[in-house]
Order: sequence, then structure tokens, then C-alpha cells
Amino acid sequence: MVEPPATDEGWFVLHEFRSIDWDAWREAPERERERAIEEGESFLRHRELVADAEEGDSAVFSVLGHKADLLSVHFRPTLDDLSAIERRFEETALAAFTDVERSYVSVTEVSGYVSDEYFTGDKADVDAGLRNYIEGKLKPSIPDDEYVSFYPMSKRRGETDNWYDLPFDERADLMAEHGETGKEFAGRISQVIASSVGFDDHEWGVTLFGSDPTDIKDIVYEMRFDEVSSRYGEFGTFYVGRRFPASDLGAYLNG
Amino acid sequence: MVEPPATDEGWFVLHEFRSIDWDAWREAPERERERAIEEGESFLRHRELVADAEEGDSAVFSVLGHKADLLSVHFRPTLDDLSAIERRFEETALAAFTDVERSYVSVTEVSGYVSDEYFTGDKADVDAGLRNYIEGKLKPSIPDDEYVSFYPMSKRRGETDNWYDLPFDERADLMAEHGETGKEFAGRISQVIASSVGFDDHEWGVTLFGSDPTDIKDIVYEMRFDEVSSRYGEFGTFYVGRRFPASDLGAYLNG
Amino acid sequence: MVEPPATDEGWFVLHEFRSIDWDAWREAPERERERAIEEGESFLRHRELVADAEEGDSAVFSVLGHKADLLSVHFRPTLDDLSAIERRFEETALAAFTDVERSYVSVTEVSGYVSDEYFTGDKADVDAGLRNYIEGKLKPSIPDDEYVSFYPMSKRRGETDNWYDLPFDERADLMAEHGETGKEFAGRISQVIASSVGFDDHEWGVTLFGSDPTDIKDIVYEMRFDEVSSRYGEFGTFYVGRRFPASDLGAYLNG
Amino acid sequence: MVEPPATDEGWFVLHEFRSIDWDAWREAPERERERAIEEGESFLRHRELVADAEEGDSAVFSVLGHKADLLSVHFRPTLDDLSAIERRFEETALAAFTDVERSYVSVTEVSGYVSDEYFTGDKADVDAGLRNYIEGKLKPSIPDDEYVSFYPMSKRRGETDNWYDLPFDERADLMAEHGETGKEFAGRISQVIASSVGFDDHEWGVTLFGSDPTDIKDIVYEMRFDEVSSRYGEFGTFYVGRRFPASDLGAYLNG
Amino acid sequence: MVEPPATDEGWFVLHEFRSIDWDAWREAPERERERAIEEGESFLRHRELVADAEEGDSAVFSVLGHKADLLSVHFRPTLDDLSAIERRFEETALAAFTDVERSYVSVTEVSGYVSDEYFTGDKADVDAGLRNYIEGKLKPSIPDDEYVSFYPMSKRRGETDNWYDLPFDERADLMAEHGETGKEFAGRISQVIASSVGFDDHEWGVTLFGSDPTDIKDIVYEMRFDEVSSRYGEFGTFYVGRRFPASDLGAYLNG
Repeated sequence: MVEPPATDEGWFVLHEFRSIDWDAWREAPERERERAIEEGESFLRHRELVADAEEGDSAVFSVLGHKADLLSVHFRPTLDDLSAIERRFEETALAAFTDVERSYVSVTEVSGYVSDEYFTGDKADVDAGLRNYIEGKLKPSIPDDEYVSFYPMSKRRGETDNWYDLPFDERADLMAEHGETGKEFAGRISQVIASSVGFDDHEWGVTLFGSDPTDIKDIVYEMRFDEVSSRYGEFGTFYVGRRFPASDLGAYLNG
Repeated sequence: MVEPPATDEGWFVLHEFRSIDWDAWREAPERERERAIEEGESFLRHRELVADAEEGDSAVFSVLGHKADLLSVHFRPTLDDLSAIERRFEETALAAFTDVERSYVSVTEVSGYVSDEYFTGDKADVDAGLRNYIEGKLKPSIPDDEYVSFYPMSKRRGETDNWYDLPFDERADLMAEHGETGKEFAGRISQVIASSVGFDDHEWGVTLFGSDPTDIKDIVYEMRFDEVSSRYGEFGTFYVGRRFPASDLGAYLNG
Repeated sequence: MVEPPATDEGWFVLHEFRSIDWDAWREAPERERERAIEEGESFLRHRELVADAEEGDSAVFSVLGHKADLLSVHFRPTLDDLSAIERRFEETALAAFTDVERSYVSVTEVSGYVSDEYFTGDKADVDAGLRNYIEGKLKPSIPDDEYVSFYPMSKRRGETDNWYDLPFDERADLMAEHGETGKEFAGRISQVIASSVGFDDHEWGVTLFGSDPTDIKDIVYEMRFDEVSSRYGEFGTFYVGRRFPASDLGAYLNG
Repeated sequence: MVEPPATDEGWFVLHEFRSIDWDAWREAPERERERAIEEGESFLRHRELVADAEEGDSAVFSVLGHKADLLSVHFRPTLDDLSAIERRFEETALAAFTDVERSYVSVTEVSGYVSDEYFTGDKADVDAGLRNYIEGKLKPSIPDDEYVSFYPMSKRRGETDNWYDLPFDERADLMAEHGETGKEFAGRISQVIASSVGFDDHEWGVTLFGSDPTDIKDIVYEMRFDEVSSRYGEFGTFYVGRRFPASDLGAYLNG
Repeated sequence: MVEPPATDEGWFVLHEFRSIDWDAWREAPERERERAIEEGESFLRHRELVADAEEGDSAVFSVLGHKADLLSVHFRPTLDDLSAIERRFEETALAAFTDVERSYVSVTEVSGYVSDEYFTGDKADVDAGLRNYIEGKLKPSIPDDEYVSFYPMSKRRGETDNWYDLPFDERADLMAEHGETGKEFAGRISQVIASSVGFDDHEWGVTLFGSDPTDIKDIVYEMRFDEVSSRYGEFGTFYVGRRFPASDLGAYLNG
């Protein structure tokens, strides 16, 4: 057996994709629409407020195409918090106009591929810059008014190309190379990596944020030529959307 | 032909995943909701009571994400018991607010990979510790108030990596290595392995229980580096949730 | 091109899996339920009666899990008979409470792997024991009150392990080995093999009957180690259930 | 790059699979059912009439199993004709009792594997027998009162077995061998091959007609041992059914 | 790591596939149908008008088969424009008679495989013909009254045939060969290539236009023999249809 990487975990993550029942919306009386918007906005605003309290973060995005209309992303300290959020939304009048199309459950993760120092020594001795970097990965905040791309992924366990059969050092080298490609997009793209091993159908959920959607296309495309992706990456469904403030929910729904 | 392992079987198992029709729930008159909760609770409590009578065990879990809202797990001496449970639930007023999204049918199993002694000699001569251990695998009890992860799995029959083509001893060695990884989580994670060969779409259903969901992620991730998983494991859909007592059903449904 | 086996065919087979709309059932007035039971029972009883007339056989099974509630199996001399059965059921009041979830269309088959003698010589000269055996395969009868497992399967045409590329003798040897494993379960498990080549999505449908469901698990598991399965078998969805007499339909539906 | 075969095309083809909403049918007032039958019959009869005018052919089949109840097959000179047929059917009162479950769009095709002569020389010089044969492939007529099997297929582009990487002559030889197997069924099975490259999800649609459904099973099974199928064939979903005259639509619907 | 190609991007693209609820349409009162047609036509006409303003292009197509009835294709300078189009359509009375069946989100792209010159030097120095050619790829216009074929595709990352593992020059050579096959169809087929990496489930969306649907079949078939397709192409679902002017919407809907 080869050596697994050490890992550290931060917030649990829920991605929830909902479609809107536009037929019902079109036909609903004004009063019902107003109540749905009011309760929906209030729900979203309250979820976003926790960000200030440093107990997580939440945001809502409009999604392109038929797969969904809305994506909510929630970071929270416990799975129970996420369960409560799911349950609470169902009590709003907005819920009646939506269907859950897809979700993804994960937990933010950093691994020993990224830094030996952080995992092997005394965490108090860890360089402050590195500690901040890792803290930002484990307790990420969601940038305002930016485009988002979400996709789940796994590492291939093929009969020739088997990630889980590679020696630790080879995996670490491939991850480091991958990191270099990522650095070319520093300042343009921020990414959240969260493990869904044991929780959901792929091994990780990847969430990219950027103010130019072409950068999203470029980083995913360039990374695909990294050996870690070209030979060992297996990708699920991709979603693309854009964040909007909770207060724009009415504008979004009313067109 | 290579040698199959000896096996022994215990209780039959039904995992039943249901979603709640929140739109119907939101709009139902108070009296109907009360009746649904009452009949649902009573159904769950009666199912759990059998545990005391040592004729099986039952528990209900809330599930994260869109795949389901509730998971019921039932262990029983016969398939007919499980069939009756399915049928009985449909008579409750709660059933009208739910849809079955998925289920899994299996039977708890221990195999000769784990212990030659148990299978080859006289069972009366088997060491009491081992007998207890195996009894616990065949007639498991469900821990209170813990997180659960369920996933079905099969052994790969690839054109290069073919589990069913390996000699018995090689399979036994790989299983033993896998067991070592499991032991690192002793006291934190308990697991139930049940065969679904001939009953359902993968070969086994795996149910993990633990009081910290990160342990669930860690054990599945570390085991993935074991050769038995990295080269021979094929995994289905993963579900994660948390047990709640039958008496909390109303609290769960009413938010 | 390698040599295909000779084959002989018997009855056509329809497996029909239906779910029950329990919500509609729960809410239906007593009179409607009675009529549905009456017409459903009568339909099933009439189908089973043909067995006595040696023109086929029919039986109904309760099925475990979410995939279906009822399985009907019909053996008949022609595809048209099966088509009429499908059509006739839709006229019953029971049909309104059910949805077809899945079906499988096939024809019972014996092949030259099993017996050269039967296929190459004059059939009148064939040993009576063998003739009876083959007749039983082509015109099977469905045992009372037993568990059933159904699954479709194909032979692999992989780039390394390609069944259809093997010489006839090698295929015959592998089938013979497989038959030996089956014989260990003689008296406990009976199986019906029916070809669906050109009719349905896999190449064969396999139906196993046995009075102990653990025997079903055991035979499928042990056979998986036979080279014909481990390297060349590709399996679809598995269903498990139990036969009940037509006269128990009301008891089944009313819990 | 290897050499593609020359091709010639004939009629465009639409296979349309519809299920009947038996619940709605059972409950519809007699007058509505009569109108649905009348309009349905009239639609089918008008479509079949074009056959006499040599502008195509049309037929309706009952289908076994849950995948569909009715299959309509239409051959026409243009895609627009097929589009009009789809649209026209939706205007009939019968359409309200049906749902489209699946369709397949293709164009009849002969290729240079079959005949160099036809493709390389002056078509006027082509032997009359061959010309008739090819004409029959490009403008097929649908036999009366026979069983049908439909399935889509593609040629494999595996990493070892890659049809599109083989030299032309090797492909032509394999196709010729395949043709020999087909000839054994001459007079019993007729087949229509139509390309769906660029139009639908597999590369070809295959439609087999025969008066004995066992011949359908036999030809598909025997052909599977031809190298062109065993190593290079990839098959989709199979449907089996039987033609009935438009005038029997009422009898079919009313059982 | 091998070298990725340089890319340039143009307009964002939305393909939206909708089915029509023919049952609802058939039963709708004349006045509602008229309003739906009026609002649908007006929506489509306004979308097409932007083409004149050089801010994109839009067109509507009827689609063959069960996958959809209508395809709308929109090219726009931003993802936000596409999101607004989606949202705006839902406000029309036509929307109530349709369901979104599928969509595809992408951005037009040219890559360094096609032209070093364009990517490496000063774009002002680029030959005017090449610049026009590339401009036409990035800001395509949709031909009138022609057939369309749409399919998503990815490059294979197999364990033997792995596009993303090939050296740049080998990829460029294979793309050049592919381009030669395309040139044989110059004047008959025009094609739009748009990247969906990070946006949707395959890596590119391909849209072909041509006045003869047989040319569509021929180009896709011939290209499949190019090594870039035969060994490295992975194709999704294919759709075929025909453009019609917005003013024909009523004629289309009313048959």
C-alpha cells in the first residue's frame, strides 16, 4: 500500500442547485410573488450575514442553461448547520416555486501534497503566510459579483493510469506542477477544493470564482494538459453562473 | 477456476431512501400534519422496538442534499420481514408526504478472508472473542445519534485488474491489509458489510457509523489507497446523514 | 469467424415489473379497491390456469425495494400471446393503480455448449433423460411459494476478454465448468435461461428460483468466480422477490 | 488517415416509439375513444398510401414490453417530410392518448464496402440486378404482417479495436464476411440499414423484418460472432414488435 | 507537461432545446394560442434583430425526433446577455407551452493549432484574409433556411489514446489533417466551434449548417476517419433540424 496524504479539514459545504417553476411563477398572483420574494430574500440575507460573524459564508448565483436557475453555496462549521439550512429554506414561500435539481456535499480540505511543514511540525511554528494561505483554503469567503464554475471530480483508478497506486512523491510532484498552472491565474481566479469522499458521488467538488468567464475556461483548459488532469482527472457535470446580491432576487425573478 | 471464500450470513438489510414532498407538507392542514407525524413516529418506534427483542434493529436518519431527505435502515431475520416493513409504511399517513427515491437490499455477511478458523473447524470450538466479533458483524446494532454514510460497491472485473481472477491467498492478503486500515479507526467508525449479490445492483452495501463526519471522510479516503480499493473497488452513489430518534420526527418535519 | 453454438428455443418470456401507486390506493374508496383486487386476481388466476393446459406458465411475485412492487412472469408459445397479456392487463381496474417500471422480453434457449448429441443427431435418438432435461429448460414451470431473482446479462466483448472471439471449444469448456458450479445447487436452485438477443437490451435474462434466498446469493457469488463470469459476464439490474398465489393479491395490497 | 467508403443515400427514415396512456384511455368516454381511433387510423392510412405513390413507405407496429406500445416507421424523400409527419400526428385526437418515448432519425445508405462497381464506374453501366438490389436498400418497402426488431449501433473506436483506424480493405473484408452470414437468412429476414451519423446518437439504425421472431434472434446472435460485430460492434437499445394494418388500430386499443 | 494551444475567444453561445406540450396546445383556446404565437414571434424577431446591430446573432430551428421540437441558438458578447435571453423568454405566453429539454453553454474559440501567425505576432500585422477568417469564426452569422446539426464533443483522455498527453506538434498536425477534410465541404457546410470547458459537460459544442442534410452526414462520417476523431474524439448527443424564420412560428405551431 502506498502512503495517503495527511489532510486537514475546514468548513462543510453545500452546493444546492434549484430550478424555478416559471409556469407557476408567471401565473401566481402578485401578492404571492411578493411574499415569495420577501421570504426568499430574507432567507438569503440571513444566511449571508453569518459571513460577518465568521461562522461560514453563503451566496446565491444565477445559473446558465437548463440544469438549474439558482445555485446556493453555503460554508458552515458542521453538517448539521447545512442540514438546517436545507430544511429552513423549505419553509419559505419561495420554495414552492422551486425544485432541487442537484446538490453536492463536501468539506474543505488541504492535503500534505501542498505543504509538508504544515502537517509534520508543530502548527504554532508554521510560517504565518502559509497559515493564512491554508486558513483561506479551509474557511474561504465568496467574492462579490463574480462568475462561478462548479464541477465534481475524482482521481482516475484506471487499469494503467491509477492515481491511488502512484507513490506519494510522484503524486506530490504532479500536484505541485498543477499548482504552478494555477498560479498563472493568481488574482484572476480563486478556487475552493472540498473533499466529498464518503459524502457524495465524486471525490472532490471544485468551485472557481472569477470576474471574467474566459479566465474560467482558460484555467480549466490549461490545467487539463497537466499530467494530473490529463491522465488522472475524471470530471462530472459543469455548471456556470454569476453571483447576485440577495436584494436582487426580486429583479431576477421578475426579469 | 479460483476458490471462492466461505461465507456466513446474518440479518437481511433494507436501506430505504425517501424524499419529502415539502410543497404538500407546507400546504397541509395542521390536523393532517399531526396525523402524519403521529403515524410516522409510531411506525418508527415500533420498528425500533424489535431491537430490544433481538430480532433485528431499525433506525431513521436525516440525509443531506437532493438525493433524499430520510433514510430508514432495517435489519431483520428474513426478507419477508423487510417486505412487510415496506408494505406497512405505505399504510401510514406519513407515506403520502414521501416518495421512495432509492433502496438497497442485502444480507450481512462474513467471509473466509476474515477468519479460517470460524469457517473450517467446529463452530463450538471457535474462540469466544472471535465468535462475538462475528456475531456483531452478522447481527449489528445501530449506534445512537451518529452520522451515517452508505454506499454500494463491487469488486472490479477489469481486463487487467480482475478481483475474481486472483488466487484466494492474494485476495485474503489484500483483505487483511484493508482490515489493518480499518483498525486505525477502531472506536471511531463502525461498519456493516452486507452482500447484495443476486439481490441488488452492486455486490455489497457498506454502512459506516461515526460521531465525527470527518472520520467518515478519512476512513474512506485512506482505504482508497489500499490495493483492494485502488485497483479492485468500484463504488456507487454515496449518501451521508445523521440518526435522529423517532420522537424527533415532528421536530424534523416542522423545521 | 469463430463458430456460433447451435440453439433450440422454447417458450417466449415476458417479465413485467410494476410499482403500485400507494397514494392512490390509500385514498381509493373501498368499492374501487375491491373491484381492482377482484379484476387483478381474476386476471392472474386466468393466466396461471394456462399452465395446466401446458401452454405456458404464469406467476406473480412481490418485489423488494424501490424498483418495483410486483413482478409478473409469463411463459407462452408466441410473442403474440405475451402482447395480448400486456394489453389485457391494461383493461383491469387494477392497472389504474400500477405503473410499468421495467420489462424484459426473451425466449427460452438451450445451446450446443450443453449437449452436442441433442443438436447433431436425430432428435428421436436422444436419450430420454436428456430430452426431459432440455424440455424442462425450454418449457419451464414456475415453482410455488419460492423466492425469485431476475437479472439480465451479456457476454463481454472487451478488447482483451472477448467471449465472441473465443474458439467454440474454449467457450464450451468454460460453460461446462459453469454448469458444475450450478450442479452444487441442484435441488435448491432452479434456473431459467432465455435469450433476448434482438429482443431486449442484454443478451439473456436469467431467472433463479429457490426456497432460501441465501442460496440465491451463494450461487450467484460462487459462479462469479467461474472464468465464464469473472472474465466474460456483464450483468444488469438485479431484482429479488417472492411468489404469492393470485388469491393473496388482496392481502398483499391491503397489507 | 485511412480511406472512408463511398456512400449513396436514399430515403430519410423516422422511427417513432410511443407509449399509450392506458389510464386515460380506460377512463375516456366512448365518443372520445372513437374519435381518437378514427383520426389515428386515418392518419396511418394516409401515411401508408404514399407507398403506392412510390414516395416512401410507412407502417405501424405494436411493441412488446415497457419501452413503448407503438412504433411508427416512415421512409420519405426529405427530412422535411418527416418533420411534417411528426407535426401532423400531434393534431390528431389520438396524440392526446400517447407520449413519444424515443425516436430515431437516419437516412438509408449503401456503401463502397458492398460494391466497388456501383460507386466507381458510370451508374448507367451497372448491372441491372445489382442496381435493383441497391435500389431496394435505398428505397425499401416494409413487409406486411411481420415481426420487427430495431436497434441503433456504432462501430467501436476502442484503444485496441478501432474500426475507423483499419485500412479500407480490411474493413471491406469484414463487411463481406458479415454479408455471408446475412445471406444464410435470405428469404427469412430482410434488413434496412440507415446512417444516423450527424443526425442521431449512434451511427446507424438497423431494422430487421421477419415472419418468425426466432429468426430475428438467430441472425443477430450468429452475426455477433462475426469479427465485425464481436470486435467492432456497439449496440444500443433493442425493440421488438409486430406490424398491424392501420385498420386494426381500434382492435389494438380496445384489446 | 505538454504545451496547451493559445486560444482567442469571441461570442458566448447558448443552444436551448425545447419541447412543445402538444396536448396543452391542442386544447388551448384560440385566443391563448394567438397570444402565445404573437409573443413568441416578437421575442424571436427581437433577438434576431441584434444581428444587424453586429452584437451577436439568433435563430430558431425545428428539430426532428423526440429530443426536442425547437432549438434556439444565440450568439452574444457576454454570458449576461445569454442569461437575460433565457429569463426574458420565460415571460412570454409561448413559454407556458414549452419545456426546456437541454441546453449548451459555450464560447466561440480559435486556437493556435489553426494559425501560429495570429497568436504569436502583432495582431495588426496579421494578413487581412486570415483576420477575416478568424473574425468569422469568433463572430459567426447563422445562414438562412438551412439544416443544422449540433453535437457536443471532447477529446479522449484514454489510457492509450490520450489527446492531452500528445506533444503540441502532433496535435497541430492532426488538426491540420482534420481541416483538410473540412475544406472538401467548403461552400456546402459551415461550422461553428465553441469551447465549453468549465461551462458545460463536454469540451466543445459543434454546430454545422448546410443546405443539404446529406452533406452533414457525409462530413461527420468522413471526419470520423481522421485520426483526430477516430482515436481522440468522444461525441455526445446529436440533434438535427432546420431553420425557419420567426414569422413562420405560427405556421409551425398550427401545422
